[in-house]
Amino acid sequence: MGLAGAHQGCAGRAGAKNVQPICVHIVGAGPGDPELLTVKAVRVLEQAEIVVYDRLVSPEILDHVPAAATRLYVGKMAGCHPMPQDQINALLVELAQTGKRVVRLKGGDPLIFGRGSEETLHLARHGIPFDVVPGITAASGCAAAFGIPLTHRGLATGVRYVTGHSRDGTLDLDWHSLADPNTTLVVYMGLANLPLISARLIGAGLSADTPAAAVAEGTTPRQRIVPATLGTIAQELLERDLPSPVLVFIGSVVALIGACMPARPAAIREARHAPPKLALV
Amino acid sequence: MGLAGAHQGCAGRAGAKNVQPICVHIVGAGPGDPELLTVKAVRVLEQAEIVVYDRLVSPEILDHVPAAATRLYVGKMAGCHPMPQDQINALLVELAQTGKRVVRLKGGDPLIFGRGSEETLHLARHGIPFDVVPGITAASGCAAAFGIPLTHRGLATGVRYVTGHSRDGTLDLDWHSLADPNTTLVVYMGLANLPLISARLIGAGLSADTPAAAVAEGTTPRQRIVPATLGTIAQELLERDLPSPVLVFIGSVVALIGACMPARPAAIREARHAPPKLALV
Repeated sequence: MGLAGAHQGCAGRAGAKNVQPICVHIVGAGPGDPELLTVKAVRVLEQAEIVVYDRLVSPEILDHVPAAATRLYVGKMAGCHPMPQDQINALLVELAQTGKRVVRLKGGDPLIFGRGSEETLHLARHGIPFDVVPGITAASGCAAAFGIPLTHRGLATGVRYVTGHSRDGTLDLDWHSLADPNTTLVVYMGLANLPLISARLIGAGLSADTPAAAVAEGTTPRQRIVPATLGTIAQELLERDLPSPVLVFIGSVVALIGACMPARPAAIREARHAPPKLALV
Repeated sequence: MGLAGAHQGCAGRAGAKNVQPICVHIVGAGPGDPELLTVKAVRVLEQAEIVVYDRLVSPEILDHVPAAATRLYVGKMAGCHPMPQDQINALLVELAQTGKRVVRLKGGDPLIFGRGSEETLHLARHGIPFDVVPGITAASGCAAAFGIPLTHRGLATGVRYVTGHSRDGTLDLDWHSLADPNTTLVVYMGLANLPLISARLIGAGLSADTPAAAVAEGTTPRQRIVPATLGTIAQELLERDLPSPVLVFIGSVVALIGACMPARPAAIREARHAPPKLALV
């Protein structure tokens, strides 16, 4: 059921008379730029009868959905809370049981900080087949947009994504493990806790001079980047008004922004603290 | 130049009389499934005049390239070494200086273990504009194909990609940092060094019972997964003949493969050591 869907794509309905749940597609909408959707995501959206979508999905992406399809918004609105995850889970089961083609459309990649696996688990428990269409995660999209390598020989042997968002106000992370100077660290949803995150990383031994940069609305025409260092990034962001969510890159590779780019955008030029130069291999 | 390209896409040539390098596109081909190309990658390939591509690019993906375009293969062939990186860098500059539309097509994401940043740096040093089109990296593609969450509340607060490939036979990694039970670890190109990697992780404190799984040819019709544990995965792979490159997932989330999927594929059923069950939140 679910795995057949996952491996071979979703088969069509057996027949109109038997209303049976068909494969629910959990689809990654990518980082923002509608052209960074996958071909598979576009195909699935064009065949959708019901789309359940989040705040981080660009309006242009919904243009792929047929006009006759039902659009259900479950994201956060000004002054309102988003629909709780357990209600979204229950909604997906209920919608799947109508026998219609249901697409759950999520910003970025469904399996990276997207809670997509909570939805697939819930569907599986109810015997509803599903597949997951991966999306370009924000780190990858923003790295490409600004020329930040996520790995680079001699500078970063790997890359790590963590969330800076906390459920109860505390961040239970292994700071010593995170303070690895040879790994590029990308913090998702880290704006609110950035002073704490940078202080803890420095406390765990990562140099305050480590290059760092914050990106908002990456891959869209409104994208902005604020380059700084681990020691200054929190203060730099306090003095600006970047829209949430903000992605923070920390690591030697961030210094390559300037080196990779013959021309620099206004957002980089305006930074008062340029990232330190590195000798390039 | 480069940044304008990166932000606004590549503009067309100024005029046929002035042969000037135009934007070189560094494009991620994704994990294998041709449908996991981005819409932007398809558009860029359809406009290409010269494509320089790697071993990890599916033949179907090259079908997007116009018949009249020049295709240059720089990947590894049986018994032969691939073209050295510095020769590829020089080739890209030379091709860009013809004034033709050059696409550098790389498996996965160009900025994750793709050496794409070495190419962008080299282009930038020669004043040649470029942009980077991100791709679905293998970890994300394979996670979606087999229902492995990369993050999951209560099991993994983050995800980390490292390479198991070494230039000189030694792996200079921070094993204590890597042995974090709350992070999903994905090892790229780890087949040859897997006995060393699993021994070092266990030595650094990660439980030998930690679920692990190896994936070959993920997202293609030939995809296979071998689930095991950190303590058994190296031996399991010794007894099989998985084609390189192999992606290895290590972490509690790997136990969700079975729980997420009502039906299991042959490759999972055949495993003699099923991953341990976890209590799901």
